[in-house]
Amino acid sequence: MSDDVLDKDQAPPPREALEDNRLTGAFVDEVTDALAAGDTARVQELAEPLHPADIADLIEQVEPHERQQLAAALGDVLDADVISEMNEVVREQLIDVLDAGQVADVVTQMETDDAVAILEDMDEEDQAEVLRSLPADERAAIEEALSYPEESAGRLMQRDLIAVPEYWTVGQVIDFLRQAGDDVTSDFWEIFVVDPAHKPVGTMRLSLVLRSPRNVLVTDLMNREQTLIPVDMDQEEVALRFQKYALISAAVVDPSGRLVGVVTVDDVVHIIQEEADEDILRLSGAGDGDINDSVREIVSTRLRWLVVNLGTAIIASIVIGFFAGTIEKMVALAILMPIVSALGGNAATQTMAVTVRALATDQLTEANTRRTITKEIRVAVINGAAIATLVGVVAGLYFANVHLGLVIATAMIGNIIVAGLAGVMVPLTLDRMEVDPAVSSPVFVTMTTDVMGFLFFLGLAAATGLTG
Amino acid sequence: MSDDVLDKDQAPPPREALEDNRLTGAFVDEVTDALAAGDTARVQELAEPLHPADIADLIEQVEPHERQQLAAALGDVLDADVISEMNEVVREQLIDVLDAGQVADVVTQMETDDAVAILEDMDEEDQAEVLRSLPADERAAIEEALSYPEESAGRLMQRDLIAVPEYWTVGQVIDFLRQAGDDVTSDFWEIFVVDPAHKPVGTMRLSLVLRSPRNVLVTDLMNREQTLIPVDMDQEEVALRFQKYALISAAVVDPSGRLVGVVTVDDVVHIIQEEADEDILRLSGAGDGDINDSVREIVSTRLRWLVVNLGTAIIASIVIGFFAGTIEKMVALAILMPIVSALGGNAATQTMAVTVRALATDQLTEANTRRTITKEIRVAVINGAAIATLVGVVAGLYFANVHLGLVIATAMIGNIIVAGLAGVMVPLTLDRMEVDPAVSSPVFVTMTTDVMGFLFFLGLAAATGLTG
Repeated sequence: MSDDVLDKDQAPPPREALEDNRLTGAFVDEVTDALAAGDTARVQELAEPLHPADIADLIEQVEPHERQQLAAALGDVLDADVISEMNEVVREQLIDVLDAGQVADVVTQMETDDAVAILEDMDEEDQAEVLRSLPADERAAIEEALSYPEESAGRLMQRDLIAVPEYWTVGQVIDFLRQAGDDVTSDFWEIFVVDPAHKPVGTMRLSLVLRSPRNVLVTDLMNREQTLIPVDMDQEEVALRFQKYALISAAVVDPSGRLVGVVTVDDVVHIIQEEADEDILRLSGAGDGDINDSVREIVSTRLRWLVVNLGTAIIASIVIGFFAGTIEKMVALAILMPIVSALGGNAATQTMAVTVRALATDQLTEANTRRTITKEIRVAVINGAAIATLVGVVAGLYFANVHLGLVIATAMIGNIIVAGLAGVMVPLTLDRMEVDPAVSSPVFVTMTTDVMGFLFFLGLAAATGLTG
Repeated sequence: MSDDVLDKDQAPPPREALEDNRLTGAFVDEVTDALAAGDTARVQELAEPLHPADIADLIEQVEPHERQQLAAALGDVLDADVISEMNEVVREQLIDVLDAGQVADVVTQMETDDAVAILEDMDEEDQAEVLRSLPADERAAIEEALSYPEESAGRLMQRDLIAVPEYWTVGQVIDFLRQAGDDVTSDFWEIFVVDPAHKPVGTMRLSLVLRSPRNVLVTDLMNREQTLIPVDMDQEEVALRFQKYALISAAVVDPSGRLVGVVTVDDVVHIIQEEADEDILRLSGAGDGDINDSVREIVSTRLRWLVVNLGTAIIASIVIGFFAGTIEKMVALAILMPIVSALGGNAATQTMAVTVRALATDQLTEANTRRTITKEIRVAVINGAAIATLVGVVAGLYFANVHLGLVIATAMIGNIIVAGLAGVMVPLTLDRMEVDPAVSSPVFVTMTTDVMGFLFFLGLAAATGLTG
């Protein structure tokens, strides 16, 4: 959250620009038409009443090759607020074409966390150039933030906050706030209370400060139960704390316990979405796919995973190859094979998705792991038996071969049980090894279910003399 | 957010109970040991210092059959705050065993939105009984909330809020807040400004109120740009607005524009997580799976999807069946088939995941749809060509059959292009038809890629006389 209240006397933006919270195609066309006609005044007129988040959307919505032109046409309408709101990928593309001086101008208008978000994605050289163009105190703040690990609280936090001594009264707090000038932020939701060593001892909700008479002591009003965020805590962990304890803001402390910054919930809201999306995309082998990535970036991520999956598919084919003779004698086996691998794969994916998300949201812990695994086995046995019966009957009837029906039924139940087990054990093991289960599980899990599925099916067929 | 500040003089909870934000197995064991020994005093002693969210976790972590006993042992420690924090599934199980009077007791201590969350999941009979046991004004508030659609703003909102007239000054606002008694909430982050018809005209951040001198007029301080939430807006939409405009709270209005309630960001944070999780689980065919569901619930959800997938797998098998003669003549086809279907399936899943999430987060709109589809086709062509070359070479060499290599390469590139197209077109079409793309896409997409994959591969083999 950067600036104060927006232009307070401004009427709400024209609602025709938005429908269901998205910019309409018609509005975007109007802007691009004005752009093509070189009518920058019209472009600004259309964009100016919009909320910065919507102006950012507008830039993301136009064709990539038009974005620079639009940025130039928008002029001052494209301010620091808009840039903070932009999708990361599109913002990088835009920043790339600005020179260091222009970037520095934009950055000086931002809060430290927004400034860091821009600078951290730049090349080292460009980043250094921009930093040199900044006023000394801003540069110091940003360099400090960059010294913290990526995706940590230190990069998320704001330094501007309100901290008052324990021995003050409500009256003194209000006087301080009223008399403070522009260098004290108006962007806070709670007031931190610190001891002489600048270590947080409590927080005060503004609503309580407003409701209390002036003579009430801060120590009597504050909440001592506070969630302190270590400066190097991972952002996903920060987000989970906010969610768990219903926080609006939280104090960030350095290793010695001193208050160094504050994280507010709106930064965290954005992370929760991102982290969940990451898991979906990684589970599908789409990497960190963003709808704005270039063709090259998309190809490089997805192709990597397709090649890995090709590897596991080849392993499965090798297993089938062992049974080439068996298949030659009964083509029904080839016809039914996809059913075995498809169902095993689906059962495994279901289990894997639930497990990965339960791990990510701290719902799967030491205390309930054994119980969860036992439950998954029971579910797999029941589902396996049901599907196996269905498939066995259908296959047996269609090919008029009871033995075949029994073989596929047995293979199916075995495969679904293995799939259920793999779907829960693989993510759990990877998590214990501190490897991201969303990225790595799919490969191991599908390989297991495919190989075991074909082994069961074709192996049973051969072993029980199905093909004579 | 229900009560005010927690017991302010209470020291922070013993940190040994928690590690990495989760209750340790050792702590949970201590509690269950005390429970087994019938030592309710010890159980309360252990649980009492914890934050309500952690007490809720404790109840979720113990074995299901121990939960009722633990609930009884906790006594007053298991208060309304704890119940609001509990996982939905576990809370339902617990509420089930309470009688209407007990439920009513708990509910009266809660804010309307938390009370509604409990009551909306109850059977109609039980719900009616509880409502009868409530004081008239609470019953009215809850019945009103229940009259709104499920998962809408009307059910999420609080009725307790601070609304002041436009013509007041900051001084009058502060005086009002100081003099108001306990029936005015202390749980607010912004103050709404209303016209005589009780329609919101602006909001005031508390930080600005605190910083302004008493004589400043409310109309000069307030932000007229506000996000109004219609009372029947879907909760996912509400969450997206909060995220997009970095809101802390937002006014909820009825169809005539009157202010009826407020939604705060902490309710929304929880929804963002839920909605993202739902998509992951639906894309995997795991329905609305929760780690606490009973075996029966899990089976019923997943089995349904396994049967549906069985249907699509059978369709694929039928397609293979057409080419039984071809396969009989060349078993290499049966050995290579899984590679074609696996790669097609993976490519489709990658695309589908990105598309579904882009739709859910309003990033895929009218304005950039054509561009996205074009990009997906280009990615599919490049990836398809790369994989096809790899597979063609490996297969051709392994089976010493150039014709076979060419056939599988051609089939592969065709399949990956179809997969990419299906992965983006199916979710888009379903979304336009207002059907949830996360639930329905996987079935259609996998059916398409499997059928087309086998058709391409085996059809080409037959048509080009590969098997003589």
